[in-house]
Amino acid sequence: MKPSAILETCLCATDLEAAAAFYTKVLGLEMFAKEPGRHAFFRCGQGVFLLFNPEVTIHETSIVNGSPIPLHGTSGAGHVCFRVGEEEIPAWRERLQNAGVEIESEVEWPAGGTSLYFRDPEGNCIELAPSVIWGLPNEQNT
Amino acid sequence: MKPSAILETCLCATDLEAAAAFYTKVLGLEMFAKEPGRHAFFRCGQGVFLLFNPEVTIHETSIVNGSPIPLHGTSGAGHVCFRVGEEEIPAWRERLQNAGVEIESEVEWPAGGTSLYFRDPEGNCIELAPSVIWGLPNEQNT
Repeated sequence: MKPSAILETCLCATDLEAAAAFYTKVLGLEMFAKEPGRHAFFRCGQGVFLLFNPEVTIHETSIVNGSPIPLHGTSGAGHVCFRVGEEEIPAWRERLQNAGVEIESEVEWPAGGTSLYFRDPEGNCIELAPSVIWGLPNEQNT
Repeated sequence: MKPSAILETCLCATDLEAAAAFYTKVLGLEMFAKEPGRHAFFRCGQGVFLLFNPEVTIHETSIVNGSPIPLHGTSGAGHVCFRVGEEEIPAWRERLQNAGVEIESEVEWPAGGTSLYFRDPEGNCIELAPSVIWGLPNEQNT
């Protein structure tokens, strides 16, 4: 018995509005829930990407059906990598540049594939990469 | 054009040995790479789960094929949720208890499904939940 996948991936952002605009407009993620000042939630493939404002979630407990959701929250630059198609990297490079997002680094991996690294408005380290960089199949639509 | 999935989900741990033992022995994840003191990497479904020691990754730049991997690292309790089968929750509850891991909270979600919350040795907030909690199909083996 082991987990079959990661269901929730989280980053923290104190300016949720700016971060949410970035993930929807620049990265094209679908925001499906938000609580202004506390969180913004996005769908991504078979999982969800959650942005939390740590200034709230570190000390304010939410209760669901009588049970507390444990406190969490980080400071500093978190990291996440979103999977994109290997053939899409040039188009993503162009989209980031057109959106005024500085590409901080591009890495060509020994196993093949290129990663684009940049920052979200909060300073989190964001990466776009094809799954071949981890020796995983290039599945765009699953 | 939008990301098709999350490829890398990360948490930070200053005591990588303790954290890595937890994720392999208690959660059953397969560790496939490590650099003692810096990182430990695990496979999970079609993505990877990465543990970084922020005391290193915040200020030491790695170079791959001549390009830098941008710095990142967080402090405080991060959060991740691993997907498990809805029918496996009782067995996970038992496994955590047998491993001496305190279940901090159990949440029954309005959409159905139960989450188990506990801490890794670093204090990160870890959750096991079926995908039904987000209205996603209960796919264990993909």
